[in-house]
Amino acid sequence: MNPSRCAACRYLRRRCPPDCIFSPYFPPNNPQRFASIHRIYGASNVAKLLQRLPSHLRTQAADSLYLEAQYRIEDPVYGCVGLISLLQQQIHDVERQLAMTQAEIASRARHPQAVEGNLLNNVGNPSFSNQASSWFM
Amino acid sequence: MNPSRCAACRYLRRRCPPDCIFSPYFPPNNPQRFASIHRIYGASNVAKLLQRLPSHLRTQAADSLYLEAQYRIEDPVYGCVGLISLLQQQIHDVERQLAMTQAEIASRARHPQAVEGNLLNNVGNPSFSNQASSWFM
Repeated sequence: MNPSRCAACRYLRRRCPPDCIFSPYFPPNNPQRFASIHRIYGASNVAKLLQRLPSHLRTQAADSLYLEAQYRIEDPVYGCVGLISLLQQQIHDVERQLAMTQAEIASRARHPQAVEGNLLNNVGNPSFSNQASSWFM
Repeated sequence: MNPSRCAACRYLRRRCPPDCIFSPYFPPNNPQRFASIHRIYGASNVAKLLQRLPSHLRTQAADSLYLEAQYRIEDPVYGCVGLISLLQQQIHDVERQLAMTQAEIASRARHPQAVEGNLLNNVGNPSFSNQASSWFM
């Protein structure tokens, strides 16, 4: 076995040519990265996608393909789309919380004698969860 | 041409068998749906993914694969991951806005004589854009 073969060429059991399209983005010390991408997209589709891009954008493309492949393997029904739905729901939740807080401030400005406690109901009550954000970081 | 062939079998120029794995999810009146998925994943990878799922989850899987394929075609470098980054940034922006508003409320509660105008700086100033959310809906 040639230790300099990239992870893709090892996986595909082929010689790794000097101009291998996979080699810069799939190092031999991370075989899982190519295995995931191969399982979801297939080697030829990934090669075609990378070849259509200028070389300075291929690392980002390989990274994002890997992330999408990982999500599809973990959640074969929804993949990345499941995370997107979750993030959209979180945005709506925080927006609603912000709108409620702002409405109370406006009400307080119109009626300065209102009970201070109303305003404080929204303070120190972090209902928003960072869970989905942290999953992706 | 058999008008009852599904979009996948038409695209692949093959007979559409009664138990076609694609037929329920790729109707002949929407050829673009299969063309997009085929371009990114390839027919055999999509067939394998659908076959591994129970039939009641395959519609959702085909829908999410189509969405991811569309995003990858529109943005070959980042695909869905670009949208996810944008949504995460939006969450951070709204969270920061909410935290600032809540901090001002807390400060107002500790110092009731504070200038009312400070509180109102955050009201009616919708800095958050729904653009990314609406792209995906």
